[in-house]
Amino acid sequence: MTPDAIREGVVQGTGGVQRRAMAKAITLLESTRADHRAQADGLLTALLPHTGQAFRLGISGVPGVGKSTFIEALGLYLIGLGHRVAVLTIDPSSTVSGGSILGDKTRMEHLSVHEKAYIRPSPSSGTLGGVAEKTREAMLVCEAAGYDVVIVETVGVGQSEIAVAGMTDMFVLMQLPNAGDDLQAIKKGVMEIADLVVINKADLDKHAATRAEAQITSSLRLLSQHGNPEHAHHDDRLWHPKVVQISALHAQGVDGFWAAVSEFRRLQTANGRLASRRQQQALAWMWERIDAGLKQAFRQHPAVRALLPQLQQDVAAGRVAASTAARNLLAAQQDQAQAAIESIANQPAPAPSPAA
Amino acid sequence: MTPDAIREGVVQGTGGVQRRAMAKAITLLESTRADHRAQADGLLTALLPHTGQAFRLGISGVPGVGKSTFIEALGLYLIGLGHRVAVLTIDPSSTVSGGSILGDKTRMEHLSVHEKAYIRPSPSSGTLGGVAEKTREAMLVCEAAGYDVVIVETVGVGQSEIAVAGMTDMFVLMQLPNAGDDLQAIKKGVMEIADLVVINKADLDKHAATRAEAQITSSLRLLSQHGNPEHAHHDDRLWHPKVVQISALHAQGVDGFWAAVSEFRRLQTANGRLASRRQQQALAWMWERIDAGLKQAFRQHPAVRALLPQLQQDVAAGRVAASTAARNLLAAQQDQAQAAIESIANQPAPAPSPAA
Repeated sequence: MTPDAIREGVVQGTGGVQRRAMAKAITLLESTRADHRAQADGLLTALLPHTGQAFRLGISGVPGVGKSTFIEALGLYLIGLGHRVAVLTIDPSSTVSGGSILGDKTRMEHLSVHEKAYIRPSPSSGTLGGVAEKTREAMLVCEAAGYDVVIVETVGVGQSEIAVAGMTDMFVLMQLPNAGDDLQAIKKGVMEIADLVVINKADLDKHAATRAEAQITSSLRLLSQHGNPEHAHHDDRLWHPKVVQISALHAQGVDGFWAAVSEFRRLQTANGRLASRRQQQALAWMWERIDAGLKQAFRQHPAVRALLPQLQQDVAAGRVAASTAARNLLAAQQDQAQAAIESIANQPAPAPSPAA
Repeated sequence: MTPDAIREGVVQGTGGVQRRAMAKAITLLESTRADHRAQADGLLTALLPHTGQAFRLGISGVPGVGKSTFIEALGLYLIGLGHRVAVLTIDPSSTVSGGSILGDKTRMEHLSVHEKAYIRPSPSSGTLGGVAEKTREAMLVCEAAGYDVVIVETVGVGQSEIAVAGMTDMFVLMQLPNAGDDLQAIKKGVMEIADLVVINKADLDKHAATRAEAQITSSLRLLSQHGNPEHAHHDDRLWHPKVVQISALHAQGVDGFWAAVSEFRRLQTANGRLASRRQQQALAWMWERIDAGLKQAFRQHPAVRALLPQLQQDVAAGRVAASTAARNLLAAQQDQAQAAIESIANQPAPAPSPAA
């Protein structure tokens, strides 16, 4: 299947034809072969004009909080409203161990077999940055295929939450009504980036859920006041992070949740923040990939590989200052390229061939 | 003054001779001239065998918490015990605006004129990473000069606290007995790296100070339990972060503070963590400087500078995927060097000169 045929299948196909084209597109985008990568970049650029219409919803929470149950209920509710729903996953555990905290798509029994849903598990190898990149690209494929709600799910361990918040329009944090859980979220810097906090299993202990709601509401207010002075006073044009209670197991509160999401989307579109957030995310993503590429090229450079082991020992043992070692390694990488460039510049013009 | 003479003055000089050599050493280390930098690296390597004997104490807190008053009281107390005390400062405000939240050394009226104290204000230009590097190097100069307690001070705004914690043996967070301040510290990730929390101005409202102590003690316990399972149970060989109350203005609690610091130092030396923390810090410092150098070289590369403005616009406008733009820019930087290297490799051997 050529990249052109894949693009056509994704954008214009339906049913099984479209699904197969999407799978081929995502497989091509995940390939690490250099020739595939060039094709993949071409495909991505061709798909871009068909993307950007979906609402991108990030959902995070610790294992056991009930993400799958909630996303299944939410997805079926949205399909009932006429939406097409894609669910993508970033599972940091799968990148480390090959195992997965989030499991596979069988977690969402009804949603996974629905023709209006597309569920894709986490890429299972590479760094978190690499996995996030593959997920972002898969998101674009889903958008080009006309899925108008894309949910990106992750677990509340590690840096993956920051990555998900960095690729979605709205970041939702799911919490249990347990004392101290909010402190963990604050510590990890996740509470302050949450646009909405969902307290799940509110039916089990209504009293605890209401106490948790009050506590989290107070934390959100304190965090936004200090972090962002413009949030200090209530302004109807701005979104103020809020808390809702649900019971995913009994599909209770899904409508209230979606009403909050819709209000967020309306405000953020009207005040221009949805567009500016996407711009910032795209530029931040570009620089994140550049940083990763620079580090990789540095570590693979022959001069660096030759010097690094001994210098690391010297630095750890206190024989060489860290800053001196860094300068030496950077110079070693740059000198070799620089020497090559200068050598060309100084090359004498080819000797004229002896007169014929 | 040659680098050799500077080294000798720092290590063996006394009084004014030593102070002048220290000033020259730090000036040389702060110079951005390439020839100075080579001399500076030589000096640093020559000083290194004379460093590492001091205890490195980081102190942080928001403006108004009473850092200067406390450090003056502490410094004079330590000199009374026979120590020599150096105070270095990282002020993120001075790097941005040229202005300084922390002000100059006149803040510590008595300590600054004491012959057994050495006070150096924050480097006032460059990125935070650059300022932190200069401060680390100045710290090594102070150690080589025999100062056996080095205090590195910073304000509780921005990333400078993480930088100070990354260059000291013990990180102390100063707090006021105000409700909500601890939440700010948790949010910034500073509470979880604090080895000791000091509540200052405890004399003003003993009740509030005691309430703050209980609150912070509880936060520290929650944070360390979740972050580091080995801290979950009390172990006498390990340090458990604690809280002390002081009144810097009345020099109350300084002895209790120093007793806690001494206990920390004793434990961390015995269990090997002081040494391993320094090793990790040195390696992290090296990689931090390498990252900064790679980014700088990338942004200054002619091919990157030629492509970047248009690509940034394309990415922000959604015409080019961020990952595609990143790959193009990385390839542009690497291709030029690679092409130069290959061009040399493929160069035909010089044409033999025409027969004479």
